[in-house]
Amino acid sequence: MADPLVIFTPSGKRGRFPAGTPVLTAARQLGVDLDSVCGGRGICSKCQVSPGVGEFSKHGVTVAPDALSGWNAVEQRYKDKRGMIDGRRLGCQAQILGDVVIDVPAESQVHRQVVRKSATARDIVMDPATRVFYVEVAEPDMHEPSGDLERLAAALKTQWDISDIRADIDVMRKLQPTLRAGKWAVTVALFRDHRGGAWRLIDLWPGLREAPLCGLAIDLGSTTIAAHLVDLRTGAVLASNGIMNPQIRFGEDLMSRVSYAMMNPGGDQEMTRAVRDGMNALITETAAEAGVDTRDLVEAVVVCNPVMHHLFLGIDPVELGQAPFALATSDAVELPARDLGLSAMNPAARLYMLPCIAGHVGADAAAVALSEAPDKSEDLVLVVDVGTNAEILLGNRDRVLACSSPTGPAFEGAQISSGQRAAPGAIERLEIDPVSKEPRFRVIGCELWSDEPGFAEATAATGITGICGSGIIEAVAEMRMAGIVDAAGLIGSAEQTGTWRCQPEGRTHAYLIHDASAQGGPRITVTQGDIRAIQLAKSALYAGARLLMDELGVDQVDRVVLAGAFGAHISPKHAMVLGMIPDAALEKVTSAGNAAGTGARIALCNTGARAAIETTVQQIHKVETAIEPRFQEHFVNASAMPHAVDPFPQLAQVVKLPDLSFNTGGGDAEGGRRRRRRA
Amino acid sequence: MADPLVIFTPSGKRGRFPAGTPVLTAARQLGVDLDSVCGGRGICSKCQVSPGVGEFSKHGVTVAPDALSGWNAVEQRYKDKRGMIDGRRLGCQAQILGDVVIDVPAESQVHRQVVRKSATARDIVMDPATRVFYVEVAEPDMHEPSGDLERLAAALKTQWDISDIRADIDVMRKLQPTLRAGKWAVTVALFRDHRGGAWRLIDLWPGLREAPLCGLAIDLGSTTIAAHLVDLRTGAVLASNGIMNPQIRFGEDLMSRVSYAMMNPGGDQEMTRAVRDGMNALITETAAEAGVDTRDLVEAVVVCNPVMHHLFLGIDPVELGQAPFALATSDAVELPARDLGLSAMNPAARLYMLPCIAGHVGADAAAVALSEAPDKSEDLVLVVDVGTNAEILLGNRDRVLACSSPTGPAFEGAQISSGQRAAPGAIERLEIDPVSKEPRFRVIGCELWSDEPGFAEATAATGITGICGSGIIEAVAEMRMAGIVDAAGLIGSAEQTGTWRCQPEGRTHAYLIHDASAQGGPRITVTQGDIRAIQLAKSALYAGARLLMDELGVDQVDRVVLAGAFGAHISPKHAMVLGMIPDAALEKVTSAGNAAGTGARIALCNTGARAAIETTVQQIHKVETAIEPRFQEHFVNASAMPHAVDPFPQLAQVVKLPDLSFNTGGGDAEGGRRRRRRA
Repeated sequence: MADPLVIFTPSGKRGRFPAGTPVLTAARQLGVDLDSVCGGRGICSKCQVSPGVGEFSKHGVTVAPDALSGWNAVEQRYKDKRGMIDGRRLGCQAQILGDVVIDVPAESQVHRQVVRKSATARDIVMDPATRVFYVEVAEPDMHEPSGDLERLAAALKTQWDISDIRADIDVMRKLQPTLRAGKWAVTVALFRDHRGGAWRLIDLWPGLREAPLCGLAIDLGSTTIAAHLVDLRTGAVLASNGIMNPQIRFGEDLMSRVSYAMMNPGGDQEMTRAVRDGMNALITETAAEAGVDTRDLVEAVVVCNPVMHHLFLGIDPVELGQAPFALATSDAVELPARDLGLSAMNPAARLYMLPCIAGHVGADAAAVALSEAPDKSEDLVLVVDVGTNAEILLGNRDRVLACSSPTGPAFEGAQISSGQRAAPGAIERLEIDPVSKEPRFRVIGCELWSDEPGFAEATAATGITGICGSGIIEAVAEMRMAGIVDAAGLIGSAEQTGTWRCQPEGRTHAYLIHDASAQGGPRITVTQGDIRAIQLAKSALYAGARLLMDELGVDQVDRVVLAGAFGAHISPKHAMVLGMIPDAALEKVTSAGNAAGTGARIALCNTGARAAIETTVQQIHKVETAIEPRFQEHFVNASAMPHAVDPFPQLAQVVKLPDLSFNTGGGDAEGGRRRRRRA
Repeated sequence: MADPLVIFTPSGKRGRFPAGTPVLTAARQLGVDLDSVCGGRGICSKCQVSPGVGEFSKHGVTVAPDALSGWNAVEQRYKDKRGMIDGRRLGCQAQILGDVVIDVPAESQVHRQVVRKSATARDIVMDPATRVFYVEVAEPDMHEPSGDLERLAAALKTQWDISDIRADIDVMRKLQPTLRAGKWAVTVALFRDHRGGAWRLIDLWPGLREAPLCGLAIDLGSTTIAAHLVDLRTGAVLASNGIMNPQIRFGEDLMSRVSYAMMNPGGDQEMTRAVRDGMNALITETAAEAGVDTRDLVEAVVVCNPVMHHLFLGIDPVELGQAPFALATSDAVELPARDLGLSAMNPAARLYMLPCIAGHVGADAAAVALSEAPDKSEDLVLVVDVGTNAEILLGNRDRVLACSSPTGPAFEGAQISSGQRAAPGAIERLEIDPVSKEPRFRVIGCELWSDEPGFAEATAATGITGICGSGIIEAVAEMRMAGIVDAAGLIGSAEQTGTWRCQPEGRTHAYLIHDASAQGGPRITVTQGDIRAIQLAKSALYAGARLLMDELGVDQVDRVVLAGAFGAHISPKHAMVLGMIPDAALEKVTSAGNAAGTGARIALCNTGARAAIETTVQQIHKVETAIEPRFQEHFVNASAMPHAVDPFPQLAQVVKLPDLSFNTGGGDAEGGRRRRRRA
């Protein structure tokens, strides 16, 4: 009689095994992805499976009720102690006695899939670089002397088929007491570089340890640092947190920080200390929020632009401030987190930085490429990630181009007269009635619009304090659509615009949004200077995208993905009214949220993704905006807000753009600059 | 016509090359060991060769005077600047035009041989883990952006066929300024683990750097730390130095240090700090003496016993104080020197510790095995290395056994009433006239014997301060030979021995060597307690050797190699009179000097030796003395100094041993212990 047939779902893998074979053993032999930390000793319960009973016509088998050995004491003890869903079995305990179909639930898979919320986003499959293994180590024998580490390595070889173990000196110090505390049974955390090679002993605990190991996906921006704390077993984000980059006191934008390093001996090291201190504070706080011991933080993935990359690594960024913008290193960096002073993690924690694409296109752009995968796209996609710099990717699976554009911090609310960072009390949405020219707005921390009942009461606590990045973009776009600003970007007078809210300010005008000065509050306006700052920023962004389109020889893109602050808060409609991004059908413009952060999270959860992005980055063609004459040309041409005649049917339905143009006399250089038609 | 024939000596490698081929190119293609740091650019001059002219009948060629291209400007410039032996040519400049015989002098070979002084010692062939390479790096190109590190790696690949470069973060910080200071030409120091794999960028300098890189071979003993500073190009020892191990304040011998760690929380860390601080001081001093910048110290090899091994690595040695004497790790350790707090070296310097053989047989024993190679010996060799512990190896190429024996510090002059460390003023040699029973001696720092004219004047500055380790052994052996001490180790009275120098001290007697008490100086005697201490130490040593002989089933060894303090200062004759070592023909007893230190130096100079000793150690059979009942038995039996009837003809010629035995009555436990015949 043939051996019993075992079919695993969802993989569909099947094979015949001698009666009495444990399900876990069968799964291993077939290469079925069934987890186990204890190696089949019935103590970790990671190998839970759901055996089926009855007819499985799809698989051509009928499963008898006694196809598996009976429920046993080990399973009962685990169920009593921790609970277990009815019908589940432990794969290491249940033995195969007859033909059987066995389902491996998602939570029992090592390489389980982490579902991302966005429809366009790719899935994350768990395959972290650091994993835990329970192992029973031989006791020392005077007659066959060998070190505890060597016996641990031998046990890992026998019990897990893992060879080539290396241990840092810090871990070595714990080895002997931990082995003895665990009575020669320990749970070890092993890290393996995605390039393969040796396994690194990160930490160990006596006996079976159940607490999950965690990692950090860190988006180190010029202005803010954001961290996600991720369970390396499930991929779940246990806490997210952000702080201002403490380097801001050395300069708001990247070039001012590079200048600081050039002008001040040791200035780069000051900035290095500042960002590392900030990072440690952020990590400590995030771990506390998640209720995770910092010793359990065993990995970090950091993405950032090249200047932040160098400053974080402790490398003087001076070369990045001048042509030819040479990076000290462009490849991915993998090193001990402690080498970068990250003391708020496990002492043996490893840190990975994605590769940089070029001197102005950093690991953050690589992370966006990893998250949004333009290199896998069938149609031509433009991916734009706006921070203090904009990272721009254009391409499809044939070819991907990348550049970075110095948009400055205006899109983040900086260098704006009433600007502020996104915080309760900041105006984040704004509409202007095209007829009455009256504004209505919403502030962060309140769901109501300013003209809805109860708004004053709801915002009494925070007040209305300023305009954040998304708010200023909506404000400028709405002003343009309401005819308060002309195509050249000039704010009209009260007479020209027909609203008292356009008030003189110096030789120009400002549009009043909210005035609480009578109550000692702020007077929030959009000034001519604000419009100019937004125009400069959006021109830079647009020019970068156009430059890539020129390079690829196209006039149109199939779709646009907005990432970063952009994707999260700025509406595609307003972005297009302003001319921030090239024309595309509105339904082809999607948001990817914090794509750089997501890319970091993918690289944290899936070691294969690190190898993949390192290869991809090699194939991305870099375009340097700073030396490209066409960039300047596009930049100058893009300063206008041109949609007087709207080319998009979708946009035309909602936007009626007046073609008025204010003439303020030839003496005004700003007003005298005129829109030029784009080719 | 055939291409010219080139024959290299001393290798004898030969081949034909098109006329115009540089000698260096031909050497490379033939695999001839001809050095070059600059890669053939005529700037490093390492590729100097001596072309022959005339008839070479051995090789069957006649070399015409114009067999090589003429002396050129590059060679003349180098000769003017640095000098060059007449007749030498630069291999990269001289081109092959006709049949030629070219000699590669030793100093132009990468793998040159370092001749060791001792006749029995093996040669060292230079093949260090860290080497320098001159490389010209492509300048950055904005249009093909890549990091400086990646371009350096590409240049190393093209110019030296070296792949897989890794750089620590500290070196990365220097990369950009150094490349620019050197106008894109740099000399890099690369380290490669003897297990192969990646090359590690240790440091770099602008342009061609000529100063040699150096390494340290360190013998970390319980009592002293000795360092040799070695030129990694030539193998020359540029300076040697030693200090007392600062851990001595925590206990004289190993077990008292382990006890200190057990009794005092944090005591192990105190001792770790002490030895690391001492090591840094020693390194700094040695580098200063050699005139070498500590940044040029790029490697260290450390050998030591297991307790020192653990304390130096920062691992609590508590497990080594109790059975089963488990090491935290027994394999070789390779790690950054900075991880052990060695700040007095290059920040990226690497440190290698030889493997331990067992919980009581350390990396120092492995180093002795590497230096003396019992595993390569045709005849049965006993290698004994005496320090505070004795490491004992016995075997031949079929099998090698090892053990360690706790001799204590008596052989080093400690725990001896007039004992002191080896320093000027210490008695190091001693003879006793068998008739008059009068002593004569020599002290360290003076070539004269004490009965020679001018001795008093020559030693006036230092005085005569005590007896060092070798002195006490000679003293006890001479006392035995002069009939002052009996076979059981008892000092006789003045009446029994016939000399006034045997004076009562408590219930026993002491032999007076030198009395300066009238001048306020010391009174130097050998007491009964001293004899007892030496008896215990030599019994432990002898018992260890006998245990290994039992294990191998032999009663005789073919030869004995004495290493450590033993080899350097103790005469084989006296060692055998005392019964420190098993019987062997006197001419078969040789000295290996500081064999552990030599082993460290071999491992420092030759990376292949590291791989070799790691394999060898796996094959050495370890015998644990502490739990072996036969060790105790041998130990008790070995306490006597038995050579009343001398079994050795050689020894018999010089030694007339009286068979007297002093009877001091049954009440004295010490005196009552009687010699037992050995099986």
